[in-house]
Amino acid sequence: MTGTNRKSLDPALVNAPQPVIVLVNPQMGENIGAAARAMLNCGLCHLRIVNPRDGWPNERANAMSSGALELMPPVEVFENLADALADCQTVYATTARPRDLVKPVLTPRFAAEDMASATQNGEKTAILFGAERAGLSNDEVAFAHKIITIPLNPGFSSLNLGQSVLLVTYEWSQIVFKAAEETLPTGKSEIATGDEFENFFTRLDQELTNARFYRVDEMKDIISRNIKSLFQRAKPTNQEINTLHGVLTALISKK
Amino acid sequence: MTGTNRKSLDPALVNAPQPVIVLVNPQMGENIGAAARAMLNCGLCHLRIVNPRDGWPNERANAMSSGALELMPPVEVFENLADALADCQTVYATTARPRDLVKPVLTPRFAAEDMASATQNGEKTAILFGAERAGLSNDEVAFAHKIITIPLNPGFSSLNLGQSVLLVTYEWSQIVFKAAEETLPTGKSEIATGDEFENFFTRLDQELTNARFYRVDEMKDIISRNIKSLFQRAKPTNQEINTLHGVLTALISKK
Repeated sequence: MTGTNRKSLDPALVNAPQPVIVLVNPQMGENIGAAARAMLNCGLCHLRIVNPRDGWPNERANAMSSGALELMPPVEVFENLADALADCQTVYATTARPRDLVKPVLTPRFAAEDMASATQNGEKTAILFGAERAGLSNDEVAFAHKIITIPLNPGFSSLNLGQSVLLVTYEWSQIVFKAAEETLPTGKSEIATGDEFENFFTRLDQELTNARFYRVDEMKDIISRNIKSLFQRAKPTNQEINTLHGVLTALISKK
Repeated sequence: MTGTNRKSLDPALVNAPQPVIVLVNPQMGENIGAAARAMLNCGLCHLRIVNPRDGWPNERANAMSSGALELMPPVEVFENLADALADCQTVYATTARPRDLVKPVLTPRFAAEDMASATQNGEKTAILFGAERAGLSNDEVAFAHKIITIPLNPGFSSLNLGQSVLLVTYEWSQIVFKAAEETLPTGKSEIATGDEFENFFTRLDQELTNARFYRVDEMKDIISRNIKSLFQRAKPTNQEINTLHGVLTALISKK
């Protein structure tokens, strides 16, 4: 309860069942910060770090996180992976290259659905990311139940740690912050009714007839319908219909 | 035809119909480089830049692109957005905040499907990204047919330019580099047949009976089925069944 105006996270988001992100042996603070930023962008608040090369806390991580590390609950630091996973029930390991281990390999999208199901089943889940250069060792991958591999351009697939965390957690975010595929925001106006649209189009059609736009009688219906189609495709709002009436009035009066 | 061993892109990827990425008034070379890297990770090869603050080419962009800019066809630089879009037929503008413009707003996922359809229709498409701080101006958004907004944590949604490009182009990549949702790579072995599995389980069951593991006769069937279920869930390969036979032999002989 200080007097600061510091932003804070929605407690519902912090407390919601969710995967924990586990960075194993991360080297550069910048990458830890970028990972934290990506996590919080995607609604994940719980970061664990195993054996960070430069210790913890890390100034560079704070700077790179754009405030995410300040907003999130404190990062938990562990000496080894077994301790970091002690309370976890389903563990996903992110790897770019195939391993000689018989474990299911999931796309990030399917993994997010899988985690959402596990989470709804009351399981605590974790997603592992390896160190910058070599990724997870086979011993570390062996802690996981499933593997996540991001299918990218096979000719240029290398991602940095922050980007990997962003893509995997993005898939989680698209379940949690699901938005309508397509919306048409119309502000204070509404899509014009059939009546409003017909009123405008009948007037336009009449003015075009008056102006002898339809030169060949047999073609009139076809051309008229084509013009109507163009305006239909735009699906104007009632305010836009008013604007079009004004446009028409202005053009006529100029003659 | 120099003697260098330089990696090169698959010409099929370079020439495939695909959206062009247009960065409008980008400021930092690092962000242009990160955008290029993200694009190429996701299989997009054509980058256009409108009015870059620090001119072009840009050393920092090259360094940050991890080689992407060297591999991609040369970046095209334009003085204004109209020129950059002169040959484009469907234009998507990426914006984080709502605009007072009546345009369809799409999720990145739906936008990727929409672009794929437009591309199959033979249309040239473009995706616009604005400058680092302010994003696209309303005048710039007005060039677009549709808007892309990434639904993220409303309490912490700010992305940098490279991250925005990564998420939007990732959705394109998941159409182009579509992978099976879940696979189980088994190397040289195969999932055990019913016969192989039953042979092992019958042997285990017999050894457990010999060892008087099933103390209560009425419970034997239930407990036996539960143990079988556990091994079934693991879905062992034929090699793993051999390993399990070895484990069993070792444990028996120890007695």
